[in-house]
Amino acid sequence: MKSIIVITMGDFNGIGPELALKAAIHPTIKKLCVPILIGPLSVFEQTAKNCKLKVPLAQTTLVQLHRSGLSVIDVGDGIGADIQYGTTTKTAGRSAGAALERAVELCVQGKAAAMVTAPLSKEALNLAGYSFPGQTEMIALLSRSQNVAMMLVSDTMRVGLVTIHSALKDVAANISKEKAIEKIAIIDASLKKDFRLKRPRLAVLALNPHAGEKGLFGTEDDAMIAPAIADSQAAGILAEGPFSADAFFGTHAYKKYDAVVAMYHDQGLIPLKMSSFGKGVNFSAGLKIIRTSPDHGTAYDIAGKNKANLSSMIEAIKLAVQISQNRRDHD
Amino acid sequence: MKSIIVITMGDFNGIGPELALKAAIHPTIKKLCVPILIGPLSVFEQTAKNCKLKVPLAQTTLVQLHRSGLSVIDVGDGIGADIQYGTTTKTAGRSAGAALERAVELCVQGKAAAMVTAPLSKEALNLAGYSFPGQTEMIALLSRSQNVAMMLVSDTMRVGLVTIHSALKDVAANISKEKAIEKIAIIDASLKKDFRLKRPRLAVLALNPHAGEKGLFGTEDDAMIAPAIADSQAAGILAEGPFSADAFFGTHAYKKYDAVVAMYHDQGLIPLKMSSFGKGVNFSAGLKIIRTSPDHGTAYDIAGKNKANLSSMIEAIKLAVQISQNRRDHD
Repeated sequence: MKSIIVITMGDFNGIGPELALKAAIHPTIKKLCVPILIGPLSVFEQTAKNCKLKVPLAQTTLVQLHRSGLSVIDVGDGIGADIQYGTTTKTAGRSAGAALERAVELCVQGKAAAMVTAPLSKEALNLAGYSFPGQTEMIALLSRSQNVAMMLVSDTMRVGLVTIHSALKDVAANISKEKAIEKIAIIDASLKKDFRLKRPRLAVLALNPHAGEKGLFGTEDDAMIAPAIADSQAAGILAEGPFSADAFFGTHAYKKYDAVVAMYHDQGLIPLKMSSFGKGVNFSAGLKIIRTSPDHGTAYDIAGKNKANLSSMIEAIKLAVQISQNRRDHD
Repeated sequence: MKSIIVITMGDFNGIGPELALKAAIHPTIKKLCVPILIGPLSVFEQTAKNCKLKVPLAQTTLVQLHRSGLSVIDVGDGIGADIQYGTTTKTAGRSAGAALERAVELCVQGKAAAMVTAPLSKEALNLAGYSFPGQTEMIALLSRSQNVAMMLVSDTMRVGLVTIHSALKDVAANISKEKAIEKIAIIDASLKKDFRLKRPRLAVLALNPHAGEKGLFGTEDDAMIAPAIADSQAAGILAEGPFSADAFFGTHAYKKYDAVVAMYHDQGLIPLKMSSFGKGVNFSAGLKIIRTSPDHGTAYDIAGKNKANLSSMIEAIKLAVQISQNRRDHD
């Protein structure tokens, strides 16, 4: 029996609904799972019209799946969505937030095997009163998951992050030995449970250029990261480092490891995205539920224009299905 | 007539002397220029022995070039070099520093067309009393060059840095609108003068993830970087941005620009090194003299073992020759 995967629409002023709708009717995806869209029905109707797609959209309650058409769980507020492509609006943030809440609920209840989230605007989400730096943090809270690490997955590498959406000036202060240990453990556990790797090898990157060059450019690598790696090793984790990040990627050393632990957003996401050619997937490791998403944003500039690139969204759904199978096999 | 290119040995406990010696006798290099090594003669003799190379090394004063052999400007202190492969020593730092001083002098005097520096240990350099974060800063001071920007060059991209060897925690504080304007101008001028590009296009990266996402993760991109770009545009420079760094490299947008201006070391060097496959070259833009170097370090782990990869060193010498020709054509 195929798993139910719920797909949240993201920000309806961006490319989210287009990605969700097109991915859900994609042959590869229909073969793999039963996708169900979450968002205002009116948004998906408008999207189908923009994209010249004749899709029989049908509201569902998950009690009865509309196998012949594409099921939508309508989180509209009954007043119709006020779509303004390319604009950050509070109503879009509210709608995106409502879809997320509903998706988490369905996953927590076990009615859906996993959730895949189309990109939203963090600014709109915040305008609507959801005070989270991003979807990951909101999903973690809603699913009562305490230890979460953002992970990016492509066919070339897996990258886990110690800090996620921090201003660069706050990154160093947001890192501690304990936090590094925690994230390394989450990523190691996820590699075993979600990716079915028996003895995963982790490469831990240095925070500072040249790993601080023995204290000349920062002390954190010697004072925090190296001890965190030593403690992780003592706990049986095959972690190595801290590696000078530019040399690590320059020598393509990442090919020797099952995952790379990066200290901050751009340090991990630049190499992953550069080498994944639009097929990177965001996965929230450590969540009690399973959630993946494409590795890009709302692309306001091409919203509503039937131009969105589906590849990362398709990969995100495939990974969600794979991980849900892996977790079942593991348990 | 071929130009004289001086090559400093770098740290003699690392792979520097091996790189310098092997590159200087490489057919491609001998065809392009007259390479002259700078460092203790005894170090190069030892290196030739390690690498089983029969090279007639001859001391030179630059007055009379030893065309039949390989010329060395001996900066040894007469007591013989105390080589300890893989170890950071004060004597190696002193020797590396002395070679740099001599090379800059020869370039400033116009006796050499350019200098190429093999990798040294910043720690050893500092132990020896040269208090500089790196070679670039030392060369800038010695050549009385005020506005310098570190630039990395490969066949896939050119990257200029606004901050270089800063601890990550200090990066944000080391960036200002004025500094960004200055570095953008240096890089633009270098593209015109050193790379002979008539109307170079520059992409400026954001400091924060997602370019700060409208202030959610840092204000510097809106408050400093964007105004610096606007001012640069007003001054006639074709600069664009600030671009979210992960999306910029993920979409391979760098292919549309002549150079990328990165805010800090790893942000620029990770993508450059990852895509250059060991052929990246470090170039100090804005110096009065011409200086290039390989984009990697001393590789203590393989020092003295005849295993060093020459490719970046060869590219560094080729670029130095090319830029010296370009500057002559430009002037």
